[in-house]
Amino acid sequence: MNGRCWINGEPGTLIAAVDRGLQYGDGVFETMAVRHGRIALLEMHLQRLVEGCERLGIPPPPVASIHGELNAAVSDQERAILKLIVTRGSSGRGYRPAQTVTPTRILALHDWPAYPESWWQDGIRVRICKTILGGNPQLAGVKHLNRLEQVLARAEWSDADSIQEGLMTDADGAVIEGTMSNVFVRLADGTLMTPDLHVCGVAGVMRRYIMERAERMGVPMRVSKLTMPELDQAREVFVCNSVIGVWPVNTIGEWSYPVGEITREIQQWTDEL
Amino acid sequence: MNGRCWINGEPGTLIAAVDRGLQYGDGVFETMAVRHGRIALLEMHLQRLVEGCERLGIPPPPVASIHGELNAAVSDQERAILKLIVTRGSSGRGYRPAQTVTPTRILALHDWPAYPESWWQDGIRVRICKTILGGNPQLAGVKHLNRLEQVLARAEWSDADSIQEGLMTDADGAVIEGTMSNVFVRLADGTLMTPDLHVCGVAGVMRRYIMERAERMGVPMRVSKLTMPELDQAREVFVCNSVIGVWPVNTIGEWSYPVGEITREIQQWTDEL
Repeated sequence: MNGRCWINGEPGTLIAAVDRGLQYGDGVFETMAVRHGRIALLEMHLQRLVEGCERLGIPPPPVASIHGELNAAVSDQERAILKLIVTRGSSGRGYRPAQTVTPTRILALHDWPAYPESWWQDGIRVRICKTILGGNPQLAGVKHLNRLEQVLARAEWSDADSIQEGLMTDADGAVIEGTMSNVFVRLADGTLMTPDLHVCGVAGVMRRYIMERAERMGVPMRVSKLTMPELDQAREVFVCNSVIGVWPVNTIGEWSYPVGEITREIQQWTDEL
Repeated sequence: MNGRCWINGEPGTLIAAVDRGLQYGDGVFETMAVRHGRIALLEMHLQRLVEGCERLGIPPPPVASIHGELNAAVSDQERAILKLIVTRGSSGRGYRPAQTVTPTRILALHDWPAYPESWWQDGIRVRICKTILGGNPQLAGVKHLNRLEQVLARAEWSDADSIQEGLMTDADGAVIEGTMSNVFVRLADGTLMTPDLHVCGVAGVMRRYIMERAERMGVPMRVSKLTMPELDQAREVFVCNSVIGVWPVNTIGEWSYPVGEITREIQQWTDEL
């Protein structure tokens, strides 16, 4: 954190220990890229935040008013990360949500991470994580605060210079996403493909941006199950999120991939943001 | 909360917004029953807490010293609930745990809930929840802070006078546990049975106490998969946790059950605590 944090719109860095965000991970969050004082893909982030709140039954924050709050927070930031958390607020002990919910809103500015330029240019090395993603259609797609699976997966390796991301599978061994990113592959027939997230996974904003733009550009695309043999046979692989944009994947375990044309083209799309 | 809360041993009610307990649900907890200034099953609770920390790679608190802290917190409490949370503490942004972890310890006293005596005597009414439990062997059994499934399941009904608990199933429809309790059934052959929790579910301390005592008493028992037809055919059903002890189940949806002998006997075991 670069030291600036707001709780429900007021400067502050502390929350109640009884907040359900802490007690149960009962909330959602967005991680947004800030450049030149502006938030990239802000509308999509707010839309997903509202949808996530609705999925969990948390009253969503009034988008119109937090719009101003978010923009004010970043107006003097050349390059930063803005993280917004919305929890179901405090309640008595027990899982049952309070009848009248007063959500907690936590907004924090973080320093831009110092990733090497080569990760965009030459690609990254990726491992297959042992930690799986449990499936639950009610929670799938939502960027909620129950993220222990990602924590355990990311704890599987410590040398961030050798391995930059881990891919996570479901219980059947199908590839779902990275610990902090979504994954796309270009298949042998030229189709762009990204895993279906109706049972597990987080539906990333950058994933949506890429999917929508690919559709507009007439790039053949499908969302379906991604098996290990398909990943092995893929012609191009890349991961994406709102902060990094697109990182080509050059290595997954023993498998190697070139940084191909479609990856480069999609990198241009994200550079425009 | 009855107003008393300690953070890392000092009186306090606030935690850092950057605590990983809030950011990712990265921690574990224990909910303990206090009677006459003493904590029931304290050793088992602390053992599970340590095991949960070890499963997640969080340095467990020094049991010897928090022993005194917990006992001091409850010494003047006639009847209360003590909740202890241990998180992985604060770190920078990102799922990767810090190399040097300083856990956060949150201890809070809550009022004893005013459950009607009839729930112990005549039993409770239970529903089958629509919210399922996703499976992940790495997290199964641990009482961790990722509890959105329980929150959504408990939000399925609002009339606590008509329905007292909900049973949750895995993706295959096997019964795993209640939203806040473990479940036992007596089968037609007299065997006491409770669901296997190696893929999902929380391994409750009261469940362990009952299992160990049943073994000592020579009660035939097994831990295995509990299907809906088996639940339908069960002769007795009860739920348990550290706060309630044992509640007989008299109704699950359309199915009715008597409050039987083994349930009454096990209620006596828990009354002794």
